[in-house]
Amino acid sequence: MNRDIFLKLLEQRQFKAVRSILDVMNEVDIALLLSELDDKALALAFRLIPKDKAAEVFSNMDTSMQTYLVQVFTEKELKELVEDLYMDDTVDMLEELPANLVTRILDTVSAEDRIKINELLNYPADSAGSIMTTEYVDLRKNMTVAQAMAHIKETGIHKETIYTCYVTERRKLIGTVSAKELMTEDDSMVIESLMETEIISVKTHTDKEEVARLFTKYDLIALPVLDEDDHMVGIVTFDDAMDVMVEEATEDITKMAAINPSEKPYFATSVLAHAKSRIPWLLVLMFTSIITGAIITKYEDAFAAIPLLVSFIPMLMDTGGNCGSQSATLIIRGLALDEIHFRDLFRVIFKEFRISLICGGVLAAANGIRILIMYRDPQLALVIALSLIATVIISKLIGCMLPLFAEKLHLDPALMASPLITTLVDTFSILIYFNIATMLFQL
Amino acid sequence: MNRDIFLKLLEQRQFKAVRSILDVMNEVDIALLLSELDDKALALAFRLIPKDKAAEVFSNMDTSMQTYLVQVFTEKELKELVEDLYMDDTVDMLEELPANLVTRILDTVSAEDRIKINELLNYPADSAGSIMTTEYVDLRKNMTVAQAMAHIKETGIHKETIYTCYVTERRKLIGTVSAKELMTEDDSMVIESLMETEIISVKTHTDKEEVARLFTKYDLIALPVLDEDDHMVGIVTFDDAMDVMVEEATEDITKMAAINPSEKPYFATSVLAHAKSRIPWLLVLMFTSIITGAIITKYEDAFAAIPLLVSFIPMLMDTGGNCGSQSATLIIRGLALDEIHFRDLFRVIFKEFRISLICGGVLAAANGIRILIMYRDPQLALVIALSLIATVIISKLIGCMLPLFAEKLHLDPALMASPLITTLVDTFSILIYFNIATMLFQL
Repeated sequence: MNRDIFLKLLEQRQFKAVRSILDVMNEVDIALLLSELDDKALALAFRLIPKDKAAEVFSNMDTSMQTYLVQVFTEKELKELVEDLYMDDTVDMLEELPANLVTRILDTVSAEDRIKINELLNYPADSAGSIMTTEYVDLRKNMTVAQAMAHIKETGIHKETIYTCYVTERRKLIGTVSAKELMTEDDSMVIESLMETEIISVKTHTDKEEVARLFTKYDLIALPVLDEDDHMVGIVTFDDAMDVMVEEATEDITKMAAINPSEKPYFATSVLAHAKSRIPWLLVLMFTSIITGAIITKYEDAFAAIPLLVSFIPMLMDTGGNCGSQSATLIIRGLALDEIHFRDLFRVIFKEFRISLICGGVLAAANGIRILIMYRDPQLALVIALSLIATVIISKLIGCMLPLFAEKLHLDPALMASPLITTLVDTFSILIYFNIATMLFQL
Repeated sequence: MNRDIFLKLLEQRQFKAVRSILDVMNEVDIALLLSELDDKALALAFRLIPKDKAAEVFSNMDTSMQTYLVQVFTEKELKELVEDLYMDDTVDMLEELPANLVTRILDTVSAEDRIKINELLNYPADSAGSIMTTEYVDLRKNMTVAQAMAHIKETGIHKETIYTCYVTERRKLIGTVSAKELMTEDDSMVIESLMETEIISVKTHTDKEEVARLFTKYDLIALPVLDEDDHMVGIVTFDDAMDVMVEEATEDITKMAAINPSEKPYFATSVLAHAKSRIPWLLVLMFTSIITGAIITKYEDAFAAIPLLVSFIPMLMDTGGNCGSQSATLIIRGLALDEIHFRDLFRVIFKEFRISLICGGVLAAANGIRILIMYRDPQLALVIALSLIATVIISKLIGCMLPLFAEKLHLDPALMASPLITTLVDTFSILIYFNIATMLFQL
């Protein structure tokens, strides 16, 4: 939908046309379109959205738009909206709103819902509990398929997903039945004979990253969440799991670039917030690399005697850093995807050692030949070739081991990525280089 | 399930116990367990899997296991397996198998299926067509809910998902109905009055990355795929979209570490293949950083006069590289998530410029004070502080602009990440540093 046409229609109060447009648009696209309007137009446009779409459009808006709307809504409008929102979307919104608006919303809901919402708000930020919804289809094992279908027809409309139904007994989860089975099996079949009893479930405190991993591993549509007493308290749906996957990948990628992760998109983050998330690591790494500098000063005599030696410093440092970050990145990603574990340490080391022999060999040959041709100095070529091989080996070993040890120590492996490894590897490459040079040139 | 106990039961031919174990295990976990068996035990164990689970276990195995089983299966076993496999899983398998086994499998399927399979095999590797399945629920607009439900009961069992049903007319897609609506609406309602007509769909040639983005954006369970004539030819299901998302994130992350991406997990890739995917960029970057070295030699006189100057090279190079990779990473991720576009170039530049003023200022102050305290040399402190500020600004600008230009030129922005930027930024930081030093120290 073209924003300008939409705005013009809205200004000219052609509400019928606006309503028709909103009627054929997808909820996500409506939310995007509305994000380009100013506050007054937003409130007007939102009230023109067909009633059955309003809640979903609302849950797709960003916090600033939601905040504004909650402020201007009448009590009646607010009550209707919250009734139509899924429990997990209400909680997501409440987590971001200022306290006075939270109170305003909680005043509109039933006492029962208020208790549920407060419970959900209390789960830790990265837990399964924080992303779950309490609205799921609950069946009994002695129901028939026909009874189950009738039960869903009665209660299902406001459940976020009805495609996996949960069979409980005294609040314990004893089985699951898919809507596919209900729709394709005989009406007289008893649920108990259909239900799957090998259930994949998580606890309320399970990390949401682990939750997302289970969705990918088992291709789930929903995942039941149990409390400490193994009572079923809610489900996580696949759309929230997909969001977590995207978020976690972004978090890993930013950490690997030495940035403290932020949950907001690039443009929504202020200049000061950007600077704050980048400065800590820059400072740490700057002071670490001063050590490398200090080591260089110890070899002042060497480069005073042969000034050309200094010119190879960037090449050796960069190559070491690149080799280290290649290995570190592959290991960090393997850990995140559950393909590599700490117990594989020696397998990884042996593999990286062989890889670095090949990489080091090729780089040393290429650069050695270049130096022979350019400077006709076989001794210099040998120094650089040997330094390169040693640097590549050491860098790849540091690069592959640090993330594994981080995992073992329950630190985030992503923090061990390129920048930290580059800085560490610098020191080693300089030490190797000047030692080999001092020895071979007998400085 | 403990692998050793399972193996012992298998060896002792306690088939009843093995069957009971397999009966209560999830298909994905069975495939993982079987991956630890040798070939002979694998064939034996696979034949003990309950018939209704066998196909799904098979589709979760890796290619080498699938290849072995296809070789040892009788014609009858193969026919049964392929009948139970979803079309997209069959095609995935065929894409990896050697030609003689492909022929063996195609011989077991009906002429009609063979044509469908061959069509699917012909879609380009990264297209929607290559990950879609042709098995979906097809409804007519004049059906009632009851008729639609009866139709699903008849044909639905072998459809990969029945949760979104597609209403077609002369092979054109005219609407979608969710199973949720069918289950909660009145039996006598006509499909046409229920169906959603604003349909999100893709073409067979749409890039699979774009497909995955639509799943996350619109929280889809399935997405219809149309051919050139807008005829509906298949659907992509959310499990395949999730796999694409994970794959694409891995690909971006490896590219950002200067590695040519591979589709195989770390341990499944040979040492030689690992070396091959890493060497090209290492060579390119090594020769690029030689330029930086060449520039340094031009300032031989400077560091001959003040040898201490050399010791600040690593710190300036590393800081420049880190700043550049921070900016580049955020922009690359923003581009991948569709949050940043080339049209934002000037907004990005202005934002990064202000961020780099803050970052550069803090780093310069920290390091300047350190130098004042350690060397009591205000002139040196000034040189380093000024060099730091200039380096941070230049690095962040290069870091944010390169990925945007790559996107504009239809290159992969991920290739513009840390390693390339580090190497480029090195040259600038060295030039800035020695120019400031030469000027202030009047060398």
